[in-house]
Amino acid sequence: MKYIGVDLGGTNIVVGITDSEGNILKCYTRPTITTRKTEEIFDDIIDMCQILIEEFNLDTSSLKGIGMGIPGEVDGKKGIINYSNNIPMKDFNVGSYMQNLCKKVNMDIPFFFANDADCAALGELVAGAGKGHSDLIILTLGTGVGGGIIINNKIYSGFYAGGAELGHQTIVHNGELCTCGNKGCLEAYASATALIRDAKKAAIENPSSLLNTLSENNLDNMTAKIVFDAKDQKDSVATKLVEDYIEYLAVGVANLVNIFKPEILLLSGGISKQEEKLTKPLKEKVITKVFGNDLKTKIDIATLGNDAGLIGAAMLSR
Amino acid sequence: MKYIGVDLGGTNIVVGITDSEGNILKCYTRPTITTRKTEEIFDDIIDMCQILIEEFNLDTSSLKGIGMGIPGEVDGKKGIINYSNNIPMKDFNVGSYMQNLCKKVNMDIPFFFANDADCAALGELVAGAGKGHSDLIILTLGTGVGGGIIINNKIYSGFYAGGAELGHQTIVHNGELCTCGNKGCLEAYASATALIRDAKKAAIENPSSLLNTLSENNLDNMTAKIVFDAKDQKDSVATKLVEDYIEYLAVGVANLVNIFKPEILLLSGGISKQEEKLTKPLKEKVITKVFGNDLKTKIDIATLGNDAGLIGAAMLSR
Repeated sequence: MKYIGVDLGGTNIVVGITDSEGNILKCYTRPTITTRKTEEIFDDIIDMCQILIEEFNLDTSSLKGIGMGIPGEVDGKKGIINYSNNIPMKDFNVGSYMQNLCKKVNMDIPFFFANDADCAALGELVAGAGKGHSDLIILTLGTGVGGGIIINNKIYSGFYAGGAELGHQTIVHNGELCTCGNKGCLEAYASATALIRDAKKAAIENPSSLLNTLSENNLDNMTAKIVFDAKDQKDSVATKLVEDYIEYLAVGVANLVNIFKPEILLLSGGISKQEEKLTKPLKEKVITKVFGNDLKTKIDIATLGNDAGLIGAAMLSR
Repeated sequence: MKYIGVDLGGTNIVVGITDSEGNILKCYTRPTITTRKTEEIFDDIIDMCQILIEEFNLDTSSLKGIGMGIPGEVDGKKGIINYSNNIPMKDFNVGSYMQNLCKKVNMDIPFFFANDADCAALGELVAGAGKGHSDLIILTLGTGVGGGIIINNKIYSGFYAGGAELGHQTIVHNGELCTCGNKGCLEAYASATALIRDAKKAAIENPSSLLNTLSENNLDNMTAKIVFDAKDQKDSVATKLVEDYIEYLAVGVANLVNIFKPEILLLSGGISKQEEKLTKPLKEKVITKVFGNDLKTKIDIATLGNDAGLIGAAMLSR
């Protein structure tokens, strides 16, 4: 059995075909061009799907469906994109649009829709670091802090669409302003953006810190990696920044463990590339914070990178 | 069809029989006597079940099962009580013990086990304020802050047993010490205990506050109700306390809405008796905090009181 996945991003559309284990057999990429009409974007997607279907000589009996991961609030049950941050779409009935398109080209294939971060969680479960598990949480530590929840092998995103906003749990009442307008969200402390914000401030306050040298004395060059690198070189300012960063991340992770007690919790995104330098101290902190100091949940690093979303999208039709 | 529920509490055992809508047809209460052997407590429970079965002339064809709500961490899948706070039990295989007991008395009935707060959530869903809904969250504002989650008509308590610890989400990093040993949990701000703690402090600092008069100038008399009563009488100190209380509660509620987007979120426990005085300002605050300021979740007061646990336990075998 074959599966087609679509990863619709703000920059590129990736359409790929996988086997039942989530291995990508082939994929194609086209630019999204968000300035064009929403309908044109989806026309392009159907075209890419058709190319794969012909290439692999697929008929409906050998294809379970086409799954799409979309950035924004997606009501998978109703097939509606409530809104998207990166592509100008609002209350777009993607389900009926795609069905109509398919009729025109004589394709009779069911479609499945989900948020792209939720797809990444499913991808990691099926083919990545979550393989062999049924209950998983993923936190993506990037520009923001994204989240995905898998319960009993299925994406969980709330009764009303748009749940699993794991980065927007308040962990510091009246704390740092978050991009969402609220104060003290996990995202405002555990995103790469937050770490860079704090590192810039610390670099100014501590002119002799390696943070300045490593960013070539230009704060615009500051990255999360520079902070971790400076810490590796025993810079005390960077060490404190990393410790604080992991402390806040541990608060968010412990909150999720207390609620979900998942089998496994994965970290993805740029900062997760620190691997054990991140997970080891994180685990030590989380265990001191979870209820009863009882941590059965495995904490690990996601392995699929950018492929997770495409694979998870394909697996929506499992 | 009839259902038997057992509400095992630290003080009393209540065993009752319900119809399929969760109406209690009859129930009996006996003291738990926690000083006796665990086995004796469960022998008593079986005895109470037998009395009801005989009284209602039930055979296995008219009885779906016996459900038990137990205070503590219960692994419902395995039928094991990992631990209980109120009754000295640890790693007790209640499932196999009950099955063996049943064999002895020639009863062939399946047993179902869950945490008592989770049962209360299910009870409210089936027969209380959550009737007609499928996805519900309950927060019990009492000595502590308890939580229960219902997803798609079923209790959700995590992959590993003991999740849904909604009162132990950190909302104030390094905040007030919680009973669990962590700092800044919702429970340390939104329990009646927390409100009383803050009211006592405020009463001392403000000798002219009504908080002193209403507690007869004895801080040992302080209750959450006194704080709300003093606020109703326009006492400015009490007004600030209630506002702060609701602010913190709103943070916890918004966090849960951002994750679960439930159909309905119920408040139970002593403080919930404030009804609209609590829910109205709470909703106003929650909407400012949830992601996208989009609050579809209904926020309401639980209606079943102490019966919720018994009804929910009975409904475990639905």
